[in-house]
Amino acid sequence: LTLSNHWFGFTQNKDDITDMKPKIEVCLTPDLVQHFELEGKVVVIVDIFRATSCMTTALANGVEKIIPVATTEECKEWQAQGYLAAAERNGQKVEGFDLGNSPFEYMNPDLKGKTIVVSTSNGTLAIQQSQYADTVVIGSFLNKDAVVRFVLEKNQDTVIFCAGWKGKDNMEDTFYAGALLQDLIPQFQPDNDSCVLAQSIYEAGKNNALEFLRQAAHYQRLLRLGYEKDIAFCLTENKYDVLPILKGEELVLE
Amino acid sequence: LTLSNHWFGFTQNKDDITDMKPKIEVCLTPDLVQHFELEGKVVVIVDIFRATSCMTTALANGVEKIIPVATTEECKEWQAQGYLAAAERNGQKVEGFDLGNSPFEYMNPDLKGKTIVVSTSNGTLAIQQSQYADTVVIGSFLNKDAVVRFVLEKNQDTVIFCAGWKGKDNMEDTFYAGALLQDLIPQFQPDNDSCVLAQSIYEAGKNNALEFLRQAAHYQRLLRLGYEKDIAFCLTENKYDVLPILKGEELVLE
Repeated sequence: LTLSNHWFGFTQNKDDITDMKPKIEVCLTPDLVQHFELEGKVVVIVDIFRATSCMTTALANGVEKIIPVATTEECKEWQAQGYLAAAERNGQKVEGFDLGNSPFEYMNPDLKGKTIVVSTSNGTLAIQQSQYADTVVIGSFLNKDAVVRFVLEKNQDTVIFCAGWKGKDNMEDTFYAGALLQDLIPQFQPDNDSCVLAQSIYEAGKNNALEFLRQAAHYQRLLRLGYEKDIAFCLTENKYDVLPILKGEELVLE
Repeated sequence: LTLSNHWFGFTQNKDDITDMKPKIEVCLTPDLVQHFELEGKVVVIVDIFRATSCMTTALANGVEKIIPVATTEECKEWQAQGYLAAAERNGQKVEGFDLGNSPFEYMNPDLKGKTIVVSTSNGTLAIQQSQYADTVVIGSFLNKDAVVRFVLEKNQDTVIFCAGWKGKDNMEDTFYAGALLQDLIPQFQPDNDSCVLAQSIYEAGKNNALEFLRQAAHYQRLLRLGYEKDIAFCLTENKYDVLPILKGEELVLE
């Protein structure tokens, strides 16, 4: 039995020993999720700028629970019931809500022990679409190693689900998927072509992520909105050793 | 006025002179085409393994017209009216049709001057979805420089439309999009994040395309079906100096 290793951990002959490894796939955007079987799998939700970075920051700083909801209407209803509510659309806080989508807002000590209901442009939609997964975890650069450790320990078929931007793929989430793949292969077998896209873009930019990601449409959008500090923060690796995980309809620390 | 050029021809400040350039975007799969405005644009259809490679080969070898149709049923109807009909699904010729989807079939001198009606898994769907474009051309490695020359001459907003595989993005079409971008930038301004994915994957594999693309799911599928020769042929650059273009509902040489 010989294994020929190619560029990114793929092997020439898919019928060999690699079939015994758990599989890993990348879904580039919610608009492609219908092509993935999520049932029974681990799903890592990725929305680097900025939903999953905010969720990680919030829980790491003492927020007790986050309830992700898809629409601002739902979010408003929770708020009317007395919950703290956060909503973001087009990169900006929606009027009338308590919080927006900047990680710095979630470091406020007053939020300790609180539950926050959150609706964002892309990230909360991806979470909702993952309802049949075995386990849903929140991935960001801020908690990258915690995500990697968890996925390696689970050692089961996994989908890295990029939230993208309004149904389109985006650079930053795909780039992060590539970062995870670097640490997850060779224990996992990459199982769709999007893995190679993710690995290639990570290779292209890994030595200078902040500068490389300037090419991203959403980087430019955030810059125009005055969120330059947020961008740099969201690209900070392993600031928090925490793993947000979905329990029922709530995100809590594992 | 200063221009800061970054990795792939993107610039830091999108409000500068680059706004005067025509824009270029990459659509990774027909499942994402709803995010693109094709009207008034040049669309390059890409289905490297093997539809657009076959179309290029056929017209370069004397076939007069190709009529792309989306379904095998439609294709069957044309056949019943006396037309030569080609249909492929899952990489194989569909029973009862005259031709399949191997470029070598289209070199047959008996096909000279003929019209062929064609339906393939992905490529003909992408053509159908491009009906509102200003100009639809067929791109393959076999006619890469002819495509580049045409797009540079038109000098208008352009979408490189990858046919993918059953709605999923694929490596080989994205890789080819990256190859085109290399030649089209700096005359064009890359205008969506998928451009950087395409450029990254092309960078990663350009020095050894045949070996790199072994990681592609459809490469493996074709290999299992015995089409190794087709793969190498489809990756041959500039074998034909022809440009298939859609005129009404027919593909002909420009």
